[in-house]
Amino acid sequence: MRVLILGGDGYLGWATSMYFSKRGHEVHTVDNYLRRDAHRERGTDSLTPIAGDLPARSAAWKEVTGLEIGVTEGDLCGWDVVEPLFRDFQPEVVIHYGEQPSAPYSLIDRDHAVLTQHNNVINTLNVLWAIRDITPDAHLVKLGTMGEYGTPNIDIEEGWIEIHHNGRSDRLPFPKLPASLYHCSKVHDSTNIEFATRAWGIRATDLNQGVVYGIETEETELDERLLTRFDYDELFGTALNRFCLQAVIGHPLTVYGKGGQTRGYLNIVDTLACVELASLNPADPGEFRVFNQFTEQFSVNELADIVQRAGKEYGLDVAVEHLENPRVEKEEHYYNPKHTALLDLGLRPHLLSDTLVESMFSVIERYRDRVITTAIMPRTRWRPARAKEPVA
Amino acid sequence: MRVLILGGDGYLGWATSMYFSKRGHEVHTVDNYLRRDAHRERGTDSLTPIAGDLPARSAAWKEVTGLEIGVTEGDLCGWDVVEPLFRDFQPEVVIHYGEQPSAPYSLIDRDHAVLTQHNNVINTLNVLWAIRDITPDAHLVKLGTMGEYGTPNIDIEEGWIEIHHNGRSDRLPFPKLPASLYHCSKVHDSTNIEFATRAWGIRATDLNQGVVYGIETEETELDERLLTRFDYDELFGTALNRFCLQAVIGHPLTVYGKGGQTRGYLNIVDTLACVELASLNPADPGEFRVFNQFTEQFSVNELADIVQRAGKEYGLDVAVEHLENPRVEKEEHYYNPKHTALLDLGLRPHLLSDTLVESMFSVIERYRDRVITTAIMPRTRWRPARAKEPVA
Repeated sequence: MRVLILGGDGYLGWATSMYFSKRGHEVHTVDNYLRRDAHRERGTDSLTPIAGDLPARSAAWKEVTGLEIGVTEGDLCGWDVVEPLFRDFQPEVVIHYGEQPSAPYSLIDRDHAVLTQHNNVINTLNVLWAIRDITPDAHLVKLGTMGEYGTPNIDIEEGWIEIHHNGRSDRLPFPKLPASLYHCSKVHDSTNIEFATRAWGIRATDLNQGVVYGIETEETELDERLLTRFDYDELFGTALNRFCLQAVIGHPLTVYGKGGQTRGYLNIVDTLACVELASLNPADPGEFRVFNQFTEQFSVNELADIVQRAGKEYGLDVAVEHLENPRVEKEEHYYNPKHTALLDLGLRPHLLSDTLVESMFSVIERYRDRVITTAIMPRTRWRPARAKEPVA
Repeated sequence: MRVLILGGDGYLGWATSMYFSKRGHEVHTVDNYLRRDAHRERGTDSLTPIAGDLPARSAAWKEVTGLEIGVTEGDLCGWDVVEPLFRDFQPEVVIHYGEQPSAPYSLIDRDHAVLTQHNNVINTLNVLWAIRDITPDAHLVKLGTMGEYGTPNIDIEEGWIEIHHNGRSDRLPFPKLPASLYHCSKVHDSTNIEFATRAWGIRATDLNQGVVYGIETEETELDERLLTRFDYDELFGTALNRFCLQAVIGHPLTVYGKGGQTRGYLNIVDTLACVELASLNPADPGEFRVFNQFTEQFSVNELADIVQRAGKEYGLDVAVEHLENPRVEKEEHYYNPKHTALLDLGLRPHLLSDTLVESMFSVIERYRDRVITTAIMPRTRWRPARAKEPVA
């Protein structure tokens, strides 16, 4: 297949590019280095060293495997980038990771909120128009997030819900309570994509992904220059990855609030398998298909316990610290999202184990002298100092 | 009250500015003339002549009534416009009409889609940040549209619905099936505003308005220079207004498809009363309040019948023509949206009558030599020529 990967310089984008290339697909990848710029702006960096720009990473891939990954360095908000990309490459699958991916980044201030929503909404609109007018049979595989749903008091279905109301019923988009302006931008994308399937007959799969953890894949292990990025800072780091790093450097695990916040999680190698399953089993023309992409759910406290226990086994003395929650979120809540669609397609999950956590410790130790400790504590707050308590 | 009116040069914005000024409020209004530019671009114009730019309209208002309407000519996508506006005027109510309001305009091509979503989403984000950081107690009264909901097969509630599912229940945002990329932009706004109420404690009322008709208000009748605009072209004209104009100039009424498409409608004088009721009865801090703002529902065929009958009474020979539907929409469907919240606040509707239609005929006749007949027939199509039939 001709597979176009948007955001191919990122944590998942680079790992996905190598994964599809290794499996014989023709891969072309695009990035404008928005995340690298954001790190430079904040004085932070990936734990793992990145081997130069995308052309350099692609050259290393070729040297190690003999395989080609095509590269475009450019901004998907520009039609002058998107139009020739689709016209020349004629993708059969478009895997779209190319968005600003951080909730706290979107709430630093107005500028960052506007950057996030402009970037994510406009580049996805461009992709939809490109599919409509250039490659109408291409299948869009779009990375959404479980954070689009929030934490409603009912079971979360996969994108659609049959609603019975006043004696009638209909299958309608599952209601969303997004957790940040970044999460709102993902809801906007879902809204636009659903419209495009309905009005234009486009094929689309929206992957509402949980929190991804892990540092290695089959491909990254081939050569140090093939490592993918690993973020642990307050903006781009996510719970389990950050906890593992904190355990290694002797920093207390930073639990926000009571720690009852429960989310879906999955191993990075399962992300690759899910995206492959979605690509090999495309949505029908006009279908807006939604998969909830995670394998297990944990509360933050449960994750802290797991890391503490694995740390003990590994010989680390791990403390846990409860911080005032910088976010606006329920700290105790019902959570039961369905996630059977990808299992039905054949996903075989790699569940979280103490062994996995310990192997993450060992990779993190290799790069511990690269850790910028001032980047870890949360500084971005959801709520302005003077704002009132919101209605529950 | 200090009332800030965004989009004050428009059909409803100008009428609302005068209405609040007349009732003793301190009114400041803002516009960047996006709609005038769009008309220039397409070679079309308002039926009614507009008395110069906003400062000229405000000067005419002062001459006629002795009352002041403050004016800012500027783009709400620019923080350099929004920040001083909120800082200097310190609004208590912000009535937000300032958006690109046309569904077909948003689907002309990619450029117009991007312009619509960028303009509407980013300017509303700016308004939310201004309220958050400058006037946190201000009440946002935002004009949404009934077209956000689409035509689900269940009763449409006012913004929120109690969902019972697998033995549990929650009150969640009503699912949306927006009818165009313009309607999607309004859904995006609703999503962002709901987040801002929940995370920042902002007060907001989202008015999901039906199709507005009518040409005169108490204020526009005071002087010809106080007329508001009246659009009848394929992009900015709406069903009943366009039908009345077609009847007067002897053009067949253009019904798209079967004509069973049913929507909520209201008289422009009821829009003013609704916006006033929402403003005088503000939402609570942290409340995302949604009103469905219309007074009656009609199918397109029913509207055509009403105009035909009133035309006969008035001495006009009115024909009806069914065109191939340029839109993607159900032409026969269930439709039962609730709209009791504004009635409960005291709204006394002006229902559609033959007399009202005939009085519209007479105003339209006054300006019939301004009609650009080539602007009437639909040219913008929702679906590209080669796209597949969408899934029902």
